[in-house]
Amino acid sequence: MLPPMMTLHSIRAAYAAGATPLDIVEEVIARRARLAARDPAVFITPVPDAALRATARALTGRGPQGLPLYGIPFAVKDNIDVAGLPTTAACPAYAYDPAADATTVARLIAAGAIVIGKTNLDQFATGLNGTRSPYGAPRSVFDPDHVSGGSSSGSAVAVAAGVCAFALGTDTAGSGRVPAMFNNLVGIKPTPGLVPCTGVVPACRSIDVVTVLALTVPEGVEIRRIMEGHDPADPFSRHAAPVALPPRPRIGILQGAERNFYGNAEVEALYDAATARAEALGATLVPFDYAPFREAAALLYDGPWVAERLAAVEGFLATNAGDFDPVVRGIVEGARGRSAVEAFRGLYRLKELCQQVAPVWEAVDMLMLPTSPTTCTVAEMLADPVRRNSEFGLYTNFANLMGLAAIAVPGGFGASGLPAGVTLVGPGFSDDALAGFAAALHATAACGLGADRAAPVPPAPVPPAALPDLPEGWLTLAVVGAHLTGMPLNHELTGPGGFLLARTRTAPGYRLYELPDSVPPKPGLIRDPNFAGDGIEVELWALPAAAFGQFVARIPAPLGIGKLELADGGQASGFLCEGHALRDAREITSFGGWRGWLAAR
Amino acid sequence: MLPPMMTLHSIRAAYAAGATPLDIVEEVIARRARLAARDPAVFITPVPDAALRATARALTGRGPQGLPLYGIPFAVKDNIDVAGLPTTAACPAYAYDPAADATTVARLIAAGAIVIGKTNLDQFATGLNGTRSPYGAPRSVFDPDHVSGGSSSGSAVAVAAGVCAFALGTDTAGSGRVPAMFNNLVGIKPTPGLVPCTGVVPACRSIDVVTVLALTVPEGVEIRRIMEGHDPADPFSRHAAPVALPPRPRIGILQGAERNFYGNAEVEALYDAATARAEALGATLVPFDYAPFREAAALLYDGPWVAERLAAVEGFLATNAGDFDPVVRGIVEGARGRSAVEAFRGLYRLKELCQQVAPVWEAVDMLMLPTSPTTCTVAEMLADPVRRNSEFGLYTNFANLMGLAAIAVPGGFGASGLPAGVTLVGPGFSDDALAGFAAALHATAACGLGADRAAPVPPAPVPPAALPDLPEGWLTLAVVGAHLTGMPLNHELTGPGGFLLARTRTAPGYRLYELPDSVPPKPGLIRDPNFAGDGIEVELWALPAAAFGQFVARIPAPLGIGKLELADGGQASGFLCEGHALRDAREITSFGGWRGWLAAR
Repeated sequence: MLPPMMTLHSIRAAYAAGATPLDIVEEVIARRARLAARDPAVFITPVPDAALRATARALTGRGPQGLPLYGIPFAVKDNIDVAGLPTTAACPAYAYDPAADATTVARLIAAGAIVIGKTNLDQFATGLNGTRSPYGAPRSVFDPDHVSGGSSSGSAVAVAAGVCAFALGTDTAGSGRVPAMFNNLVGIKPTPGLVPCTGVVPACRSIDVVTVLALTVPEGVEIRRIMEGHDPADPFSRHAAPVALPPRPRIGILQGAERNFYGNAEVEALYDAATARAEALGATLVPFDYAPFREAAALLYDGPWVAERLAAVEGFLATNAGDFDPVVRGIVEGARGRSAVEAFRGLYRLKELCQQVAPVWEAVDMLMLPTSPTTCTVAEMLADPVRRNSEFGLYTNFANLMGLAAIAVPGGFGASGLPAGVTLVGPGFSDDALAGFAAALHATAACGLGADRAAPVPPAPVPPAALPDLPEGWLTLAVVGAHLTGMPLNHELTGPGGFLLARTRTAPGYRLYELPDSVPPKPGLIRDPNFAGDGIEVELWALPAAAFGQFVARIPAPLGIGKLELADGGQASGFLCEGHALRDAREITSFGGWRGWLAAR
Repeated sequence: MLPPMMTLHSIRAAYAAGATPLDIVEEVIARRARLAARDPAVFITPVPDAALRATARALTGRGPQGLPLYGIPFAVKDNIDVAGLPTTAACPAYAYDPAADATTVARLIAAGAIVIGKTNLDQFATGLNGTRSPYGAPRSVFDPDHVSGGSSSGSAVAVAAGVCAFALGTDTAGSGRVPAMFNNLVGIKPTPGLVPCTGVVPACRSIDVVTVLALTVPEGVEIRRIMEGHDPADPFSRHAAPVALPPRPRIGILQGAERNFYGNAEVEALYDAATARAEALGATLVPFDYAPFREAAALLYDGPWVAERLAAVEGFLATNAGDFDPVVRGIVEGARGRSAVEAFRGLYRLKELCQQVAPVWEAVDMLMLPTSPTTCTVAEMLADPVRRNSEFGLYTNFANLMGLAAIAVPGGFGASGLPAGVTLVGPGFSDDALAGFAAALHATAACGLGADRAAPVPPAPVPPAALPDLPEGWLTLAVVGAHLTGMPLNHELTGPGGFLLARTRTAPGYRLYELPDSVPPKPGLIRDPNFAGDGIEVELWALPAAAFGQFVARIPAPLGIGKLELADGGQASGFLCEGHALRDAREITSFGGWRGWLAAR
């Protein structure tokens, strides 16, 4: 009924073919049992089979109306509250029974999704490797000797093993990205503040985020969108201000001494291959200096932010120090004796580094970094747990401190049979804007989905936000002449981050003229309700509202922006021309559009 | 030649009448000497007479072309660097010779302004009263027994005594506002990050701002605009995102137990009088709960932020503890032993309080608070320096922590002969938007300017941003019909914060029609270059670019936004109508505009 990997796409196809939530849940139960037999460390608290079946029956009774995630099974990292299941944060003595779902979980359940269990993690989300848990170390789905990555270890393995369609992780230093790479998954790391953290055990409360581990970029983005939105109960929740990126981005890539793979030639080669695939997709590669980002990254564990980890568990540590994982305890206790003066000095340094890298963000639209520069076995990790872990975080630790968005994308496999991956990092609130290119890049990696290296990556819709789903605060503009793709004024749309939504035509009742004495040459469009032509070629572009406003304000007479009726019966804001200017103009309606006229002329 | 108070207005009038910078500087020298004779504590380092004259001569030689502040004398608080003068921060042992001007000072000098000296302050800007300085305590210009307020004590007295046109202060807890009240001045406190702090001795570096002490609101705003703008050398510098406020604002006022004047009935009565004057200006008064703002205010001295003061001087304190003012030293040393955990917990609490007051900002456009709830004599302050000082900051300490803009406005005098004042506090980057109402409120206070209680307040331009000076990111829109003031769709302009810039007419070549079947009734404007009428009435409105974009996108066919030629020969974006829709419409051009037609109909 379902392929080895449970994409949203495959589950929805099953429902469309007549399956019920109970059918899906039976598949989850069977797969979960098979996974537990070979890797018992993935779940800390699985939802019992009977409870899963009861939830599925209740959903079947209710029906799918209005439930965008109807009957979609997902797993939840065990530092995120699910009412009815204990939250352990991988520390049994810390466990508590939450009275309510975390905001993210509540929103997903309200959309029809089904929680299948709480997953293992590096204790208190302190780690990037997956071995720091008394519940055991989940393993890479590609090699039981290798670490799963962490801290969202169980969530990653559950999705990559085909037990559920997606899973929630959290990410402070890179916990939602590193395990995505190690298990051939997509890791959606939202801009801090976009997705609420209410009901999440804090790691560094000021910069924690809830992440999605998913099989494809569009599916991960779909889940993130359902979870996001301001939550007054989360003091760090922010109102999103979406940022756009061009479809052919300038991508910052590592150079010189900042290329550090700790000797892992496979990961290095796959990084270079990913940059080449990006270039083939139309991106411009821009080498940049990673040093200030690396210095910011170092503030997370070597600077005052580790005090946030102590703030989160200080009372529990005072009474239960012996219940901590020894490595985690060492890290948390390292914050003792750090002063408030150091905390503010760390803040100053971070702000300075943010100013220092501002020119990088002028020169590039996004960064492409190795998600982790290397990997290792469980035995190697346990032998040198702090150093090995810090290697994993070399290219992830800075992102939340600097308020950035990131998407980890699979990047293929080495001869060892282990996967690597890259992370696209964009400005704060470029979450949607990153997704289109991330999806396109994933599609070129030929790496399957999760544990299934042969699975086809579903074709990626680019841009990810389709016409009816424009980001909040964006507007549509129909252009007919010098602003069309490839024309002299197209940069006025792409410059402020606009992107092409669709190519279409006007309704029949429009006439096009060549505007006399216009530089660069431009047409004038005019409505004539008594005329029935073939419509005029238009492109629909998306622009942020402020850029749209600035654009309109710059348009010279006799042109302006009114409403165009489109061939499909819809309407869009678009270019019209004052009638008086066209009295002696040449009509070019019969050429079908400005492009047709230029070609024929 | 000059009136007792040196407004920009009066100095410019003198220049227009033939005065030279040397004439103005001679007046400054004479007045400064008279002030020093009665209050020797105002200046720490006056610029020598000869140097002032040399600067004036050089300016005269250069001429006023391109210098918006040509020959305007100003004073600088002595925690802000001026190259060539020592920076003491009111601690002689701390003094250093800065290599460069602070960014703010450099921008003012580049605009033609003349530094006349460095002014006294509460040491390291730690205080709101003006008595914490080895250089003595400047006095209120209204009573030598009373404190001047601080920490920008000398700057306030210098302006209020008529020695210069404006002065720079700084403000962390309220240092740019409290002394404004005590000396009948306007205090412009920018949103943190709007005005660079490069070259300023930090108090709490993450929230310090440079302020303007001025005689009127428009003059203070003019100075702030010259100083503002992103500075990559200041890690806390931010790109402004101006916020608009309606011309008839909803104003939050104190209520119940949160009204605390420490028994000062004069200040209380003047606060109530100011709220009544605001209401008479068209504001709606909305009682709100000050308690969460008060809790945020308490974080500044009683919470971890005091560690920033320690961070700023820690090295100096280690070697020179005996050189500190004892009260300042006690405050700074109070930060010792505060942990990084406490610092982050303070940040969490502040963020929680910001979320908690979000509904207040939904209900009001600005707050009106007593600038200081009371005042006292120098003797009273010295007798109980911490408690008395904290009284002054009850209604100021929260503003920078919460990232808000504020303008302190004079509020009149009590029977004691001492002034009081109110502060308007608005959202971050409402700096310009606050100014219009602040200026109007000042004009109704009948309190003179500075020490001159009889000086007329120059009429306030409302809005303060005139047509050529629209805030960055704002756009102009010409409306001709249902969006005119008082018409059914005018709220579409005022709702997003638009304000009326001007009433004018189109150029002669336009015709107006009554649009058939339009609800609400609307006109259609069309250009006819062969027609020469009297022009059509239009209103020019300012809208933020994003609101402008949203507005355009909502306009239904057959209307749209093109470019209108105006009666004065200028152009503006404005409403036009598709010609096909007016073929059978009634022409109403002869009524002069939509308003004329509705009146005649």
